[in-house]
Amino acid sequence: MTSMTILTEADLREIVALDLDAVACVENAFRALATLPVAMPPILRLDIPEHRGEVDVKTAYVPGVDGFAIKISPGFFDNPKLGLPSVNGMMVLLSARTGLVEALLLDNGYLTDIRTAAAGAVAAKYLARADARVATIFGAGVQAGLQLEALALVRPIAEARIWARDGAKAEVLAGRLSDKLGIRVRAETDVARAVAGSDILVTTTPSTEPLFPVGLVEAGQHITAMGSDAEHKNEIAPALIAMADLYVADSARQTRILGELHHAIAAGLIEATADVAELGQIIAGSRPGRGTRRDITIADLTGTGVQDTAIATLARDRARAAKAGTPFET
Amino acid sequence: MTSMTILTEADLREIVALDLDAVACVENAFRALATLPVAMPPILRLDIPEHRGEVDVKTAYVPGVDGFAIKISPGFFDNPKLGLPSVNGMMVLLSARTGLVEALLLDNGYLTDIRTAAAGAVAAKYLARADARVATIFGAGVQAGLQLEALALVRPIAEARIWARDGAKAEVLAGRLSDKLGIRVRAETDVARAVAGSDILVTTTPSTEPLFPVGLVEAGQHITAMGSDAEHKNEIAPALIAMADLYVADSARQTRILGELHHAIAAGLIEATADVAELGQIIAGSRPGRGTRRDITIADLTGTGVQDTAIATLARDRARAAKAGTPFET
Repeated sequence: MTSMTILTEADLREIVALDLDAVACVENAFRALATLPVAMPPILRLDIPEHRGEVDVKTAYVPGVDGFAIKISPGFFDNPKLGLPSVNGMMVLLSARTGLVEALLLDNGYLTDIRTAAAGAVAAKYLARADARVATIFGAGVQAGLQLEALALVRPIAEARIWARDGAKAEVLAGRLSDKLGIRVRAETDVARAVAGSDILVTTTPSTEPLFPVGLVEAGQHITAMGSDAEHKNEIAPALIAMADLYVADSARQTRILGELHHAIAAGLIEATADVAELGQIIAGSRPGRGTRRDITIADLTGTGVQDTAIATLARDRARAAKAGTPFET
Repeated sequence: MTSMTILTEADLREIVALDLDAVACVENAFRALATLPVAMPPILRLDIPEHRGEVDVKTAYVPGVDGFAIKISPGFFDNPKLGLPSVNGMMVLLSARTGLVEALLLDNGYLTDIRTAAAGAVAAKYLARADARVATIFGAGVQAGLQLEALALVRPIAEARIWARDGAKAEVLAGRLSDKLGIRVRAETDVARAVAGSDILVTTTPSTEPLFPVGLVEAGQHITAMGSDAEHKNEIAPALIAMADLYVADSARQTRILGELHHAIAAGLIEATADVAELGQIIAGSRPGRGTRRDITIADLTGTGVQDTAIATLARDRARAAKAGTPFET
């Protein structure tokens, strides 16, 4: 007879939020990825084309962390027609000592949203100018809003713009973020006006072609691309990857296959074997981050199993402390 | 708000047993693997050497089946020192239409035991002589007992032998099986006497070297090897694979890497690119099974995601019909 804890999305929303603790948790995960013998197997991916469905399974073991997450992330793109969300998911947290299931995190993707937004904060913390005050978010989904909130945790953001193909959605999100953060946030449908004078650009779309031309990018801007988690997705012009003063991957092994880097390699602008900086190396101090105020920096985030293990163990620890969730004997 | 059903090992033992339904379910899964565009990605494997732990994640989607399983199988080999079982696990059953989680099958490996034993029955049904009456099982664990029960479902088994390194364990299992099946079952520590005159040999050990020399094998015997699910495991002499009249894989892609075939390839006795029969092809009638009474046949079973999807959907259907399990709203 073993005992586990079941945590629903509602339970998890009570105990884990997008805050500086979540950012520190994800920052530590990236540091571990660069400094410890982390085991992070390639993503398992199952496609169900009949129903426009796909499932990713990610995991990672970080030495010294007593649990590890196995995350199941389905995306079924006909679901909205059925009144259901496209993206879903859950995590299973296992003991790293015994392999026993300690917790089922039925988060419907909430923890993924948090750890993804936290990675945006970590990227900005190490790569954007310290005085960055204007941010532009591409996209108007859940992650668009969270990315702006994440930036506001680590930089003195005073003004933001939301660009989205659907201007009405951009308006709604801008209004909501303005109220929540107490700063000026405007919707912007013109991509040139969205980019001009901004300090941080964050792309959060499922786009399959670059969102803005290279010519619009200004000296000193930092760009975080976090929409691409599959071969065909592409938010950043390949030429921009080649031109940037600093390109940083969350996991070079992944961005060479799934990230923006992949398209720059395919275009012949970057060597497939090029040595690439990883965010964890910059956090750990083994590689330099931003050089000057005028550098153009890019963070290419595809999402890593270490982030899942980090947020899942944080959730379990918080649940224990708060006696949250439903115990279940098997 | 979505609803799922949680089924514990106790729930699952009530509704799924090793019987002809389970055998038919696994037989259909193998047929599908040979005849339909099944999606079965490579196994995701995570190793945690500090704690002698490993985790496999398997999945498969079978067109026309409305659900698919993602199975998490941890094996932590220091667990017995802590009074815990080495092998464990659970399955998540998702809707193939929406990706929503329909059921959590907290089976602690029970469904894997059943679908693995059922595969042994399917192999014997298509490859052993119809009048096979003597069986030898190598190993004295849970799967050893289940394999003999499985054979008795499909062949007129009247006598059996249990060979194990630990003779005392073999005695206990032989006694239990004799009582349960009502046939003569004896423990046998001499490998030559275990093999001689037997019609079906089933190996169920974690051995890393062949269990019996090629010279002991007799015309007409069928051998099922189901212990190997990792590169280093090896129960069957490579020369026997080369010498057999018919070698059959559960999944040739897997047995070339993980199964007995892998060792025959490594020994240079079989070409790495050799065309290999799969069990599903024989079930579907697209390749011949046993030819004559004197043929030596081998089934090499590494365990496949389609078996997991098959047994998990059977369990879900039975649970619905019996209103078993605990509903859980998230």
